[in-house]
Amino acid sequence: MTEVRHFLETFFNPKSVAIIGASRNPRTANYWLTANLVNLKYPGRIYPVNPNATELLGLKCYPSVKDIEGEVDLAAISVPAQSTPAVVRDCVEKGVKGIVIIAGGFSETGVEGKSLQDEVKRLLKDSGIRCLGPNALSPLNSALDLIIGFGPTDRLPRGRLSFIFQSGLYQPRLNYLLDEMHLNLNKLIDLGNKMDINEVDALEYFQQDASTGVICIHMESIAGDGRRFFRLLKEITPQKPVIVLKSGRTPAGMKAASSHTGAIIKSSDIVFDTALRQGGALRVQGLDEFFDLAKVFEYYPPLKGNRIAIASFSGGEGVITTDFCHFNGLTIAEPTSESVKKLHTIFPSWEIPANPFDTGVSSQFNPGIDVVSVFADTLADDPNVDCLALQMGGPPQLAGMAPLERIEKVVTFYRGVVSRGKAVALWTTDPRSTKDMVDALEASRIPVYPSAERAVRALGALYRYGQVRKQASGG
Amino acid sequence: MTEVRHFLETFFNPKSVAIIGASRNPRTANYWLTANLVNLKYPGRIYPVNPNATELLGLKCYPSVKDIEGEVDLAAISVPAQSTPAVVRDCVEKGVKGIVIIAGGFSETGVEGKSLQDEVKRLLKDSGIRCLGPNALSPLNSALDLIIGFGPTDRLPRGRLSFIFQSGLYQPRLNYLLDEMHLNLNKLIDLGNKMDINEVDALEYFQQDASTGVICIHMESIAGDGRRFFRLLKEITPQKPVIVLKSGRTPAGMKAASSHTGAIIKSSDIVFDTALRQGGALRVQGLDEFFDLAKVFEYYPPLKGNRIAIASFSGGEGVITTDFCHFNGLTIAEPTSESVKKLHTIFPSWEIPANPFDTGVSSQFNPGIDVVSVFADTLADDPNVDCLALQMGGPPQLAGMAPLERIEKVVTFYRGVVSRGKAVALWTTDPRSTKDMVDALEASRIPVYPSAERAVRALGALYRYGQVRKQASGG
Repeated sequence: MTEVRHFLETFFNPKSVAIIGASRNPRTANYWLTANLVNLKYPGRIYPVNPNATELLGLKCYPSVKDIEGEVDLAAISVPAQSTPAVVRDCVEKGVKGIVIIAGGFSETGVEGKSLQDEVKRLLKDSGIRCLGPNALSPLNSALDLIIGFGPTDRLPRGRLSFIFQSGLYQPRLNYLLDEMHLNLNKLIDLGNKMDINEVDALEYFQQDASTGVICIHMESIAGDGRRFFRLLKEITPQKPVIVLKSGRTPAGMKAASSHTGAIIKSSDIVFDTALRQGGALRVQGLDEFFDLAKVFEYYPPLKGNRIAIASFSGGEGVITTDFCHFNGLTIAEPTSESVKKLHTIFPSWEIPANPFDTGVSSQFNPGIDVVSVFADTLADDPNVDCLALQMGGPPQLAGMAPLERIEKVVTFYRGVVSRGKAVALWTTDPRSTKDMVDALEASRIPVYPSAERAVRALGALYRYGQVRKQASGG
Repeated sequence: MTEVRHFLETFFNPKSVAIIGASRNPRTANYWLTANLVNLKYPGRIYPVNPNATELLGLKCYPSVKDIEGEVDLAAISVPAQSTPAVVRDCVEKGVKGIVIIAGGFSETGVEGKSLQDEVKRLLKDSGIRCLGPNALSPLNSALDLIIGFGPTDRLPRGRLSFIFQSGLYQPRLNYLLDEMHLNLNKLIDLGNKMDINEVDALEYFQQDASTGVICIHMESIAGDGRRFFRLLKEITPQKPVIVLKSGRTPAGMKAASSHTGAIIKSSDIVFDTALRQGGALRVQGLDEFFDLAKVFEYYPPLKGNRIAIASFSGGEGVITTDFCHFNGLTIAEPTSESVKKLHTIFPSWEIPANPFDTGVSSQFNPGIDVVSVFADTLADDPNVDCLALQMGGPPQLAGMAPLERIEKVVTFYRGVVSRGKAVALWTTDPRSTKDMVDALEASRIPVYPSAERAVRALGALYRYGQVRKQASGG
């Protein structure tokens, strides 16, 4: 089988990048387009284009893209909409391979903008040059240390997550997603107005991209062939999970979406929802869920069973968590009698160990013993348990109640539980005092969520996707 | 009208507290019951009871509650269940006024525990002593620097929020709620097994308690008179908002609730839900929503109108937020032509200022100008706008894109917007880099949420409650 090189290779793996509209003022976005590439040590050639400068960050500046001596794979254009057609003309003359138009002010703004966008389209016709945007801020490829973005970004942790965005909403939270939520990115593409490149192109690319393990799509409308989009989903989801945040679901949201990218949302949300489900995609409601699920799918394979064991520091939290398990398609595991017998050793005599487990009480009866790890260790070997949701911490001054004594030991312990075939999601009730531990756990791919409901929602999605796979394989 | 002193006064405003089971070992919970009162400088008398010690934290220790010379208003009993009846007998002989039983191991654990609980009940019968629990960890009264809890707690910020909990789930997150989520507590009571004192007593108390402005109830079942409970709700909600987190909603959750406090949930969740709505209570789904709403109601009066203005750093985030507004009963405001005219000055020529507002673009066109505050300032005077949801921050290095330049100035600014009659909720996409600002804003009662959906959900609840009030007043 011969693999045809997908045209988006030019965007994700360019050997050279021109930044048209590069600025020397660090207080403008256009300075950082260049600076981020420099700081990340992007290994390709960087060509800043600015007629009023000769040098930027040690790089030679060019008055026009046409003056660049070498080949230009990717031209990132960040000039006002009105100036864009002239620059695009230069790019065509230069023979660049791909273009990103960052500025807004095109079809989303009405008649005048629409005619500007049409002009750009005309200029590119028959040129063979593909175009991302307008109103798009990307691509990003962590393996190449490539980002077309405002940043500031000087580190791209590498992973299996690839994102398709409708807009630059990822931009102001990028560092937070990487450093605090510990999302490990593979690639990211922002489609903006989708004048040329659309969601179908991006999905095709990520289907064949071996380093992409999870595909996350934020979208407001379908610009390409809708039937092809949903057919692709059906092909992909048995191999890779696809998480979809589709906004513009309500009348007000649709109106807002239209003034955002100029797209008209044609189908009702119910139709869309059904098609997504048939395609095996996991639909999410908001950004919290979007990134929560991205993380769990990056860290874990799908779940084959839905039997969950819960350990919380109070019985009340166990009850709340149990309700959320139900809403997320998980059932409360019934541990084997062997497990129950083992757990009896850490329970007060009058209490029968039962799922959800109340670690608060057993902590009080076992000072100095990390009862949460006794739970997890016991249930890791229990054939009746598929996954675990565990509350981190408790009053920090009480030995045994603070389940996590030494970071290294704890991380090794939980990796051991995972290696025995269980998915573990933790939640913390005090992100401040547990921060170092959370960082260490997530660096070792044990996800920690800010609440039980979010931990359980993530595990539920892992099971739901397991079912998608099972159905696809005729199981 | 003569006000009868409610019996819970003994629990919330005791002049003296005995800690029965006080420990000298800081690695046990029972040490901190005393230490927290000492550290908070609770102004009443503290009597640690421990037959094996003569002194604890500079306080005289007593072998038995009967050996205490002075009067004991509140006796907190933290000994194992089996030892509890003997201690309760001592309390009856001493003539304490109120008792809290902290340990579990009673009716929730089966026949044996049930008979222990019955024994305690018998001992207290005809004694006139009221009892909280068993399986209860409270009360708390910030005005008195009183807490019966494991802590460690050395600071209780004072406010109008009073909580009724079914369990000690608040305990491991208490410091986080106070210091990081900036909830300002008034009083808190944990009911546990509700052998004697139940949710009806607590609700009655908070109804007449002038310093309680908002009542938040976490419950799994009704132990008291259900009709009285819902009648009370109906009386209270026109005056004070009541937020209810009722868990044990699903079959699995009900089962878990029963092994948590021994209660049998009799009515279906749908019946309960209807009764709550008729009582004017605001029902929430999980703990995130519970505390999010508590905060917004502590900070703001109810909303009379539901017209919201949104400013986000990207159009895509505006669309997502708009959908959530719809789901939360808010409508997108149509600013007056005067407002639109004013906003034109910060928009690029091709863009018509429209709600939701995209501040990312206008930031790029107005380097050095804090465009978000131009928005908020303009809309603060707009009669078509009832509330605002605004995204904090953006790429931090871009002047004007970081909306918050100087903390004091910003806080004063937003207080000004609020003083012009608008409720403002902010959300941050990077809690790390905005932490100092968030702390300062919330200290000045401007709520900041970790996502747009949570900001909008809180504002929606303010409006929903406004409608409850309007209906109650026949409006």
